[in-house]
Amino acid sequence: MYIKKQRLLTPGPTPLYPPALHAMMASDLHHRTEDFRNVYKSALADLKEVMATTHDVLLFAASGTGAMDAAVSNLFSAGDKVIVCSAGKFGERWVEIAKAYGLNAIVLQKEYGDVVSPDEVAETLRRESGVKGVFLQASETSTGAAFDVEGMGRVVSPSGALLIVDAITGLGTMPLEIDEWGLDVVIGGSQKAFMIPPGLAFCSVSPKAWKFYETSTLPHFYFDLKKEKKNGDKGESSWTPATSLILALGAALKYIQQVGMPRLVENAQLLARATRAAVRELGLELFARRPGASVTAVRAPAGMDSGVIVKEFRNRFGAIIANGQGTMKGQIFRMAHLGYFDIADMFAIIAGLEVILHANGYPVEFGRGVAAVQRLYAEAAVAEPAGARA
Amino acid sequence: MYIKKQRLLTPGPTPLYPPALHAMMASDLHHRTEDFRNVYKSALADLKEVMATTHDVLLFAASGTGAMDAAVSNLFSAGDKVIVCSAGKFGERWVEIAKAYGLNAIVLQKEYGDVVSPDEVAETLRRESGVKGVFLQASETSTGAAFDVEGMGRVVSPSGALLIVDAITGLGTMPLEIDEWGLDVVIGGSQKAFMIPPGLAFCSVSPKAWKFYETSTLPHFYFDLKKEKKNGDKGESSWTPATSLILALGAALKYIQQVGMPRLVENAQLLARATRAAVRELGLELFARRPGASVTAVRAPAGMDSGVIVKEFRNRFGAIIANGQGTMKGQIFRMAHLGYFDIADMFAIIAGLEVILHANGYPVEFGRGVAAVQRLYAEAAVAEPAGARA
Repeated sequence: MYIKKQRLLTPGPTPLYPPALHAMMASDLHHRTEDFRNVYKSALADLKEVMATTHDVLLFAASGTGAMDAAVSNLFSAGDKVIVCSAGKFGERWVEIAKAYGLNAIVLQKEYGDVVSPDEVAETLRRESGVKGVFLQASETSTGAAFDVEGMGRVVSPSGALLIVDAITGLGTMPLEIDEWGLDVVIGGSQKAFMIPPGLAFCSVSPKAWKFYETSTLPHFYFDLKKEKKNGDKGESSWTPATSLILALGAALKYIQQVGMPRLVENAQLLARATRAAVRELGLELFARRPGASVTAVRAPAGMDSGVIVKEFRNRFGAIIANGQGTMKGQIFRMAHLGYFDIADMFAIIAGLEVILHANGYPVEFGRGVAAVQRLYAEAAVAEPAGARA
Repeated sequence: MYIKKQRLLTPGPTPLYPPALHAMMASDLHHRTEDFRNVYKSALADLKEVMATTHDVLLFAASGTGAMDAAVSNLFSAGDKVIVCSAGKFGERWVEIAKAYGLNAIVLQKEYGDVVSPDEVAETLRRESGVKGVFLQASETSTGAAFDVEGMGRVVSPSGALLIVDAITGLGTMPLEIDEWGLDVVIGGSQKAFMIPPGLAFCSVSPKAWKFYETSTLPHFYFDLKKEKKNGDKGESSWTPATSLILALGAALKYIQQVGMPRLVENAQLLARATRAAVRELGLELFARRPGASVTAVRAPAGMDSGVIVKEFRNRFGAIIANGQGTMKGQIFRMAHLGYFDIADMFAIIAGLEVILHANGYPVEFGRGVAAVQRLYAEAAVAEPAGARA
């Protein structure tokens, strides 16, 4: 075989920021010490700064789904009427969690690739009385679609309902004005734009959400927002924290602060725009009707299983891209842009895609998609002084 | 700034093989223990297998120049008549070492970018009597030129002289039949095709070279081939070994064995061929008359300082490529292919080069050089089953 570097090009886990990986080596410390409390406090403060919110930000040793669970089990009660926007695998996860806790879920169901609009939620809020919460994805990872989160805030914020946003692949790929837009709970995960391995979930909690906490009657133990907040203020976690991941998060957050969160978002958006331009240039069809910048989902050419493209990326280039999930498996493939991705990654991935399509009988003019990426970059980029690692 | 990954694209240090880097973490062991002796023995045995020689292979805590020094100070005596082939910065290094040890060096000097031919060495051997050694580079890193090492072996082997080959960037980028071609000393370094950081040098020593060791009268201490051989046989090094680097070397050698050394050579040659094709497609001029596969040196377009291209790679793409060395600084730039480089790296580097040339006023049709790389890859490659990391 030729040399094939391992290249993680999936929407999570994402490529690791090397200094964050190296920081994990310093995890020979005890979590109930002043040293670690400082590390933890600093990570929480930096996370809050990067999320640009005045709301409380809490951290859990869990994957993103853990924080989704926490948002339901800590803020609602059995039988509560909620609206769940579902247009993909992660929308379905909200439905499952709501069901597991016995909420009375009104599901606004859309096809994979589509989104639920703020107007549809407004309409439902007008029709239904006593809605306690609205659940959605900022970015539906399974389809690459981005919801209009600002519009949702405008609709939900004045109502009595909480707006709960799974922003696991939304954070770092789209603007999210948590306070200004009235986003009550915004959920993130470590293995996304935060450039570190999986194992940490986090969420912001608004004052309005804290009021719901007081009246929630659902049972919960591990995930307890108030307990976590109280401990977090002292630089502690309620249970044993994932120390190596906290160290990694600290290093990654310093880098994200250096880059600037708005610029990290622009970076993902540039790469997504370039990928869409390349896809169009190659005559392929984008899957999402309202594509976001975390991941670009593309329909495989007619007669070609998208699994072939995924497999070829792996076999030829050691690159892991994502297949469709659920019913879209075999139909679409997904190339990610969130976190530690740069334009040179896109040069390589689009060139690789061209080679793969060509080898599988789809007519491709070599370099044509790459040229679209180059043109977009050339328009967008101004040569900048190089940072240490940036 | 946008995200810019650090990409080491120089002919040494080269990109690190991640598991080798991780293996360095296990260096909390003492070097005078059975555990470490096993690590050391295994690295030496694997190195010998990868170099495909029956000659002794020795390892030094030193950079490549250390093994060059050892070859002179251990095998020759002051006043010995030797032929030094010099066609670049590393040829000049042989001249300097020969001078430092008082050898009587006949320098076959060529311009940067050229090579000395076996015929010229043969001619000199006919003209001069009592020549004790011939020194050359397999690959002259400063110019990207490859010497005809097999031809040199044919000429020198039947003579009384030793053939001393600096193969620091030759190993892993060109076939080197050490036994069959009569290469008496072949020198390598860790930070080249061996995919690990700098700090280890190694060399093979032929039976003919060991005879020279017996009569050499030059003073030396740290670098002692015989002492190192005796200790190496016991799994020891003469002095404190660079344990972390030995651990890294062991991991890298396992990977190189998995890939296969001939395939690693083909990999570099494919990438070099693809780079040359792209360079021609972009209307640029190759620098070396007999280009090798370790690094491709390219003349900057007329009126453009090659330092601008190097700087732009760094500023725009976080990528470190090499400028010219010595008198060629500002004239040429060098893109490497040795070790842990793959075709996707070349997609990215050529796309980046096109953007940089375009931004600096050189007419470029985006994607044209990349297409040349893609065509060459498509011809060469057969989709292969993916190995663990390979």
